[in-house]
Amino acid sequence: MTDSIPANSVGLVKPQAYKFDEPLTLRSGKVLPEYELVVETYGTLNSTKTNAVLICHALSGDHHAAGYNSEADTKPGWWDNCIGPGKAIDTNLFYVVSLNNLGGCAGSTGPASINPETNKYYGPDFPVVTVRDWVNSQLRLMDRMQIPEWAAVVGGSLGGMQVLRWAISYPERMRHAICIAAAPKLSAQNIAFNEVARHSITSDANFREGRYLEEGTYPKKGLMLARMVGHITYLSDSAMRAKFGKSAPDFEQETSENFGRDLRSGKLSFGLNVDFQVESYLHYQGERFSKNFDANTYLLMTKALDYFDPTVDFEGDLSKAFANSDCKFLLMSFSTDWRFPPERSREIVNDLLKAGREVSYLEIEADQGHDAFLLPIPRYVDALSGYLQRVHQENESDAS
Amino acid sequence: MTDSIPANSVGLVKPQAYKFDEPLTLRSGKVLPEYELVVETYGTLNSTKTNAVLICHALSGDHHAAGYNSEADTKPGWWDNCIGPGKAIDTNLFYVVSLNNLGGCAGSTGPASINPETNKYYGPDFPVVTVRDWVNSQLRLMDRMQIPEWAAVVGGSLGGMQVLRWAISYPERMRHAICIAAAPKLSAQNIAFNEVARHSITSDANFREGRYLEEGTYPKKGLMLARMVGHITYLSDSAMRAKFGKSAPDFEQETSENFGRDLRSGKLSFGLNVDFQVESYLHYQGERFSKNFDANTYLLMTKALDYFDPTVDFEGDLSKAFANSDCKFLLMSFSTDWRFPPERSREIVNDLLKAGREVSYLEIEADQGHDAFLLPIPRYVDALSGYLQRVHQENESDAS
Repeated sequence: MTDSIPANSVGLVKPQAYKFDEPLTLRSGKVLPEYELVVETYGTLNSTKTNAVLICHALSGDHHAAGYNSEADTKPGWWDNCIGPGKAIDTNLFYVVSLNNLGGCAGSTGPASINPETNKYYGPDFPVVTVRDWVNSQLRLMDRMQIPEWAAVVGGSLGGMQVLRWAISYPERMRHAICIAAAPKLSAQNIAFNEVARHSITSDANFREGRYLEEGTYPKKGLMLARMVGHITYLSDSAMRAKFGKSAPDFEQETSENFGRDLRSGKLSFGLNVDFQVESYLHYQGERFSKNFDANTYLLMTKALDYFDPTVDFEGDLSKAFANSDCKFLLMSFSTDWRFPPERSREIVNDLLKAGREVSYLEIEADQGHDAFLLPIPRYVDALSGYLQRVHQENESDAS
Repeated sequence: MTDSIPANSVGLVKPQAYKFDEPLTLRSGKVLPEYELVVETYGTLNSTKTNAVLICHALSGDHHAAGYNSEADTKPGWWDNCIGPGKAIDTNLFYVVSLNNLGGCAGSTGPASINPETNKYYGPDFPVVTVRDWVNSQLRLMDRMQIPEWAAVVGGSLGGMQVLRWAISYPERMRHAICIAAAPKLSAQNIAFNEVARHSITSDANFREGRYLEEGTYPKKGLMLARMVGHITYLSDSAMRAKFGKSAPDFEQETSENFGRDLRSGKLSFGLNVDFQVESYLHYQGERFSKNFDANTYLLMTKALDYFDPTVDFEGDLSKAFANSDCKFLLMSFSTDWRFPPERSREIVNDLLKAGREVSYLEIEADQGHDAFLLPIPRYVDALSGYLQRVHQENESDAS
């Protein structure tokens, strides 16, 4: 951790585990007999219980969205720049609930947990979970926490898909849906990238058909590759040019436009080594990720992305899916996001409008690609902040 | 082969090998003591030797660009739809020369060849070759074939980069440069995808540091993954949607816009199997490619792409590189190509204009992404044909 916790941080936080003994029937038809969800909360639930905000995480996220888990932490939670006292999701106003989803690997029940039926790791036997299953498990969590309704359900990317599913399945339990950098369903290209990631994991000799924990191995190389592929799709071409194009390689020239071709050691190796900075960076990111994430969880999360299709019960018509979604919506997208480009958010907006819903939509000019939703981009953070201020004011005027 | 060879085919063709005993000094400083280039030719060199056209191949291409190598062939060469009697590159008018580049795996000297110094496979000891090295070897081939100058040098993608290098290094030996779907140099994103491909090959346990031929193994899974990643970047999102979105999955609905989410077996598996058609397709493409291509060659080709930077001797200024390129240029790009988008071709065009060169440029509306340059898209093929007709007429009027 930095020398002292910043004043606008939620500070030291402790995750809490909720155990659920009632079996959960999944969309696949399979049943999870029991499970735990690990949760962090920031801020205080007000007496009327109207100020709770649910944070839904994306592919590699978890419950630790803000603050520090120990004095030794060097980095805060993944959305610390938006969650805290005085921040966009203001913990002086809201009671923020953030969980690790089922199938995750940060404490909630998942493939790296012990299967009570066999006393071995679940591994590949952990069932495929869908966005709908997550939302159902989040509803139970909400009931357990005695939260009657969410002031807002908020999420980016795969988190945004959970927001949409909430608004379709349980609109009576929420007032606002904030869906950032998402899509109504994945395109073939999105699925293709996910399949490459999965294939790189499952074709690693150490994957052992998913029983690597039992067998004491680990598909590190496969997971590293999966993350490298993923990482490329999170960044924009322009962001990569800017990030890796600070100096010009073989010639003396001060330019920011060398197309991101900065060399690692100043000259080409003429071998099969890593030559460019962007290659080192990808290796570093892949390496780091592969140490901290469970490979089976990665497989499950990408399948949840692929399977997400809220139109499936509505004859393929998203506007019909929103027929009963009488919460209010905020959608945001980022100009250089080519994973879920603005066009995909506009599809959602169009179908919300067609369904007669109240929707605000903002397209943010940002160079950072899909990753932008995690970054402190002023127009984005200000918009989120402004919207939530109004949610708070609604609360106050309802109460008075 | 089809029952009979189509009338507009170049018919049965036999590759020919040219042996070069004079050592070739490469850009890396290494020296290839001797090498062979495998070549196919189509059409007839005219008496004035003014009608020769050089075809430069892309990453996975080779010398077999048109016609059939045997009666048993089921498919013609990779650019058969553009090369043949009456076709865009009309073999009634031109003498077409197509070679497998150095480092390739279709007959020219490469990593799968025997190193005369050790009598073992070159494998990882085959030196890194660059676009400049290829062009130098093509110049020698030209001299050996007693071709004084090319009527045109033609290539797409990595082939287009060879065209640019020709126009910079040896403009006096060519009259026209036809550069299709290329870029002046790779961006960080391009390099990143190549590094993922390389890493998937080199991290395959069967790669054995490149000595797999010697050791009787083969990094099939790694090569398969590399090709899967590559394949995604060759197709556009829209092309994938169209290709894999013919039917609607979970619901009855005739629509061409299900985002390319056609299922393989009509329903979701709720397992980690292949669910979507696009996944099967990628597996099929990867699998097929991994049977026919040398992994070390794949590594070399991607490095040649990464290293390509014709501005390196010109203070980073591409227009200076073209100062002496007094041939005429045709550039073409494709609207949905996100690997080398039209913007990248426009950079080349701008620098050609700045250098005072004569350049025609055409941006083709096409849904097929980068792969479009290999496909019989009417406006594209017509433009190529029209341009080469003029090249032929120039020839005729010069001769009269």
